[in-house]
Amino acid sequence: MYKLVLIRHGESTWNLDNRFTGWTDVDLTETGIAQAKNSGQLLKAEGYDFDLAYTSVLKRATRTLWHVLDEMDQTWLPVVHSWRLNERHYGDLQGLNKAETAKKFGDEQVLVWRRSYDTPPPPLAANDPRSERSDRRYAKLLPGQVPLTECLKDTVERVLPFWNEAMAPAIKAGKRIVVAAHGNSIRALVKYLDNISDSDIVGLNIPNGIPLVYELDENLKPLRSYYLGDSEAAAKAAAAVGAQGKAVAA
Amino acid sequence: MYKLVLIRHGESTWNLDNRFTGWTDVDLTETGIAQAKNSGQLLKAEGYDFDLAYTSVLKRATRTLWHVLDEMDQTWLPVVHSWRLNERHYGDLQGLNKAETAKKFGDEQVLVWRRSYDTPPPPLAANDPRSERSDRRYAKLLPGQVPLTECLKDTVERVLPFWNEAMAPAIKAGKRIVVAAHGNSIRALVKYLDNISDSDIVGLNIPNGIPLVYELDENLKPLRSYYLGDSEAAAKAAAAVGAQGKAVAA
Repeated sequence: MYKLVLIRHGESTWNLDNRFTGWTDVDLTETGIAQAKNSGQLLKAEGYDFDLAYTSVLKRATRTLWHVLDEMDQTWLPVVHSWRLNERHYGDLQGLNKAETAKKFGDEQVLVWRRSYDTPPPPLAANDPRSERSDRRYAKLLPGQVPLTECLKDTVERVLPFWNEAMAPAIKAGKRIVVAAHGNSIRALVKYLDNISDSDIVGLNIPNGIPLVYELDENLKPLRSYYLGDSEAAAKAAAAVGAQGKAVAA
Repeated sequence: MYKLVLIRHGESTWNLDNRFTGWTDVDLTETGIAQAKNSGQLLKAEGYDFDLAYTSVLKRATRTLWHVLDEMDQTWLPVVHSWRLNERHYGDLQGLNKAETAKKFGDEQVLVWRRSYDTPPPPLAANDPRSERSDRRYAKLLPGQVPLTECLKDTVERVLPFWNEAMAPAIKAGKRIVVAAHGNSIRALVKYLDNISDSDIVGLNIPNGIPLVYELDENLKPLRSYYLGDSEAAAKAAAAVGAQGKAVAA
């Protein structure tokens, strides 16, 4: 029997501004820092110990992890960063707020992008200053691996190899794992673990900064999963994320 | 031509209290945090980029590294923790301040421990509550690898395998490396790189929170080394460390 803990990063500055963030490397707000610390305190209070941590190469997830490890007094834990755990790439929407997006593309079109599993927003131009293709943290990726946009399906497809090649073998080797990642990279893991349909996964919201615990059998099939702490608060936070319409998607 | 950057952690709470710290996992003071951030700002101003970071499993070094990476906007950098970069273990002196130590062991004896390369302080009892032998971060070490005390010679002997097996190959593979560690683990590296004698190394002080840059030839022999930033300030800080008599040794 294994346990896996997934944590969506705390509120970021662009969550607060209601901007599409994607791979843009924005930081946590003070609220986000408090959420991250609270995650660590919950895990500590429940007596969790970890052997290995995974996070993305984006600072809102890394900083969330650091606060969690700090609160748990496990700052010495090995941490593996992977671009495969990054947020969904939001293409040409990155940096736009809801009003700007609606004005540029129309409300109806934005709704399609938000509700669809496999329709990506328009791509960034390769020479767009917002493109991450010249960012040295992605320098070792194969040509074409740095996306210019992604639908949720694309995100799932680049997250799962990391599950299969890194996370699953580590869990089976007995490592107790914590993952600090993003709304859509966590959705990708949840979709796979709980075998959620393409249409249902787009409606599933992951709240910021609340540890989501999976108990897995020896084949890594979920026995149960639950949010740590006040479950009503977790449900409210998830509903709030959904209602904002920026949500996990941002 | 390679560059290697070594940073002693910022001031810790027990540096401030003038206590022997060793493997005790105390945190940074506000001054220590400011020193760490300043290191990062200096490195950023000089245009340093790193590929890999090393630190100990002690939080004053890890936190120093985190502040450095944060200031440099390189929070995504791979970080390797090793117990081999820990501070010198201070045995039965750990937790005592200068006055307590002098009272317990006599001034003359304390001077011997501080000035000697190969005389360790009295060991902790294996069942001493201060012993790290039941700390799970050291659970995978071989029996006897978790010290109960160390002289500087012992510290050098457990740091050098890490240089030879991890750091040197990484540098030769072209990785640009930053190390956030401790007075004595950095002394061990400096002693090896600069071929400093056993008697001279005990008089060499490493200031807190100032990046020490080594330029190395293709055989990793030093071409030159220097502190970043205000060199007078670095010299003063090192002198202050020496004068306190707790110094690098703590």
